[in-house]
Amino acid sequence: MTKNIQDLDTPCLLLDRDRLEANLARMKEVVQLRNTSFRPHLKTAKSLEVAKLAMTFSGGGATVSTLKEAEILGAHGIHDLLYAVAISPQKLKRVSALRAEGIDLKIVVDSVDMARHLSAFYETTGEAIPTLIELDLDGHRSGVRLEDSAQLVAIGWELDRYQQLQGVMAHAGESYGLSNSSDLQKFAHNEAKSACAAAETLRDAGLSCLTVSIGSTPTALAGESYDGVSELRAGVFMFFDLVQSGVGVCTKDDIALSVLTTVISTDMTANRVVVDAGWMALSRDRGTAGQAQDYFYGQVCLQDGAVLTDILVLDAQQEHGIICVRPGSGATMPNLSIGDRLRILPNHACATAAQHGAYHVINSQAEIEAVWPRFSGW
Amino acid sequence: MTKNIQDLDTPCLLLDRDRLEANLARMKEVVQLRNTSFRPHLKTAKSLEVAKLAMTFSGGGATVSTLKEAEILGAHGIHDLLYAVAISPQKLKRVSALRAEGIDLKIVVDSVDMARHLSAFYETTGEAIPTLIELDLDGHRSGVRLEDSAQLVAIGWELDRYQQLQGVMAHAGESYGLSNSSDLQKFAHNEAKSACAAAETLRDAGLSCLTVSIGSTPTALAGESYDGVSELRAGVFMFFDLVQSGVGVCTKDDIALSVLTTVISTDMTANRVVVDAGWMALSRDRGTAGQAQDYFYGQVCLQDGAVLTDILVLDAQQEHGIICVRPGSGATMPNLSIGDRLRILPNHACATAAQHGAYHVINSQAEIEAVWPRFSGW
Repeated sequence: MTKNIQDLDTPCLLLDRDRLEANLARMKEVVQLRNTSFRPHLKTAKSLEVAKLAMTFSGGGATVSTLKEAEILGAHGIHDLLYAVAISPQKLKRVSALRAEGIDLKIVVDSVDMARHLSAFYETTGEAIPTLIELDLDGHRSGVRLEDSAQLVAIGWELDRYQQLQGVMAHAGESYGLSNSSDLQKFAHNEAKSACAAAETLRDAGLSCLTVSIGSTPTALAGESYDGVSELRAGVFMFFDLVQSGVGVCTKDDIALSVLTTVISTDMTANRVVVDAGWMALSRDRGTAGQAQDYFYGQVCLQDGAVLTDILVLDAQQEHGIICVRPGSGATMPNLSIGDRLRILPNHACATAAQHGAYHVINSQAEIEAVWPRFSGW
Repeated sequence: MTKNIQDLDTPCLLLDRDRLEANLARMKEVVQLRNTSFRPHLKTAKSLEVAKLAMTFSGGGATVSTLKEAEILGAHGIHDLLYAVAISPQKLKRVSALRAEGIDLKIVVDSVDMARHLSAFYETTGEAIPTLIELDLDGHRSGVRLEDSAQLVAIGWELDRYQQLQGVMAHAGESYGLSNSSDLQKFAHNEAKSACAAAETLRDAGLSCLTVSIGSTPTALAGESYDGVSELRAGVFMFFDLVQSGVGVCTKDDIALSVLTTVISTDMTANRVVVDAGWMALSRDRGTAGQAQDYFYGQVCLQDGAVLTDILVLDAQQEHGIICVRPGSGATMPNLSIGDRLRILPNHACATAAQHGAYHVINSQAEIEAVWPRFSGW
């Protein structure tokens, strides 16, 4: 097996094990301090090995974003799963097949329409699937709006017909747009309060609401009180990325994920270097474009991980990354030659990791400790 | 085997075989009309089955963007390959291994520095690797600039030391920024003229220049004369996409690739529908953002492929696509229910296809004819 990153073919994905473990330890501390339960979201990592590490302080459950993730994780012993994307009728058969194998897969709906499909499915199969009602706290995608309590209760009653109502679920996705701890705390407080209010609305109507599930990396790390909340969910915190650094919940030195790349062309008169990590290796994600500090296609580091301030992947084609000095920064381009190795910190860990088939797990001496395969697809 | 797209799990990738074949036939006609040779770029499709169709009018060779593509295609009988990304010293061993297996893999350099690495590699191994000098016609990435004839000749002489100089290669990537046929024709003319001029510079210096390789989908389709050009390269034309439609070299009805998706949430008061194709299925590519008509994350079509004008995927999260009316268009949102199927035309075929493990090949009756696996990685 390859022993040092010097020997790896590029581009490839590196995972710094020390940073991964420190990020996990930090969330573990938050979860213990807040005396709540944790259901890690495994959509960022999509890796059995990372899942095992993250499950050590889970309340037993995990979150997934695809049924494929549920099938793979379920087959490997993680049996308490929440599929946190609104379900469609066509997917119920696969949910049912998983439940028949002993996987306690819970699902999410946001409409009476879909709740009726669930009732019809129960009437055909006799199978009750524990279901959470998705709440829309920030008006950005699916979910029942808080002010629409009639809708919430109507879904609740439809799910209650066959004892399928398990609780409520919210994801404060708009927290990614914040950038200071006081706003994050307020947002986290509001996320918890709103989800609890929705649960109360259901209970006031005479319905049960066992589970109140909330979370996102920024709010899970910022929140101070979780009275009434059953569980927190978060995923990207395991790796962190430039977007989370811009939100203010980590520093660049916490980012566990990077893309190892090789210089393939230099033009020092144009102050430009081309590397073999294009968007195929980095993803097209430009998540920092809307933040105070834009990192274009990624932050450039030396092979040992040292950040080269204001040296960025300014543009990307399929297999070409164009490295330049941040416009206007006055930084100096380091002297690089063809064959030199660099690392790129990603805008968005979920998107960059998804471009790769495996993690090359490295220790602090940049030795390869393991290769952890990733799964993908739906 | 699944017989109809109605039975597919979503999201998934559809490939319309009739359109694929029509697009290939169109390029075949261009190649024959212009009396030139064609070296299809297989980086868009990354599929043995598509490769076989595209090779029917190739001059025998193909183009790749990764050594992995070369290894897979080489193992399946495509032996004349050009790796059209500037090589780094570390990759020479894999090139050499492929050549030892009888794969005539040609490579690309743009510097005396890398040409010297090739000389050193020859001195160690005794192996001459046919090499093209990359030209930079539009100042956007790697390649020798046309005005830098001293550099061009110096690379040529270094490669000539051990008979490794095969020719010159250019890619008119900036043609993607054009939008009318007269500009495209001029650009294509300039691409051919400049590459031939570089070849002449080498020949005038007493060097040989057997191959003059040029191309991009827009210029290959627009060019009118290829005197002195050995071969054209193009890849995305096989599938086309919204970017190419914006460039003006295809219509939406030519786009062979789409993502099949299912409605998972509707909010008709907000005129918004959420589908299960997020950026994981569509990619983060926003290639039309810089064009006259922006399609955000994709053009929405009915399940049968009928384009819903001004209905777009306006935003995308990992597994959520947010479908809205184009702002300001005054279009009406179709009445959609949870479970309804839609298709999304991609901004950029290379990026969207790369998010999937296989093509579901459909005929004009939307019946599944085959599942063609895709390869990936480096």
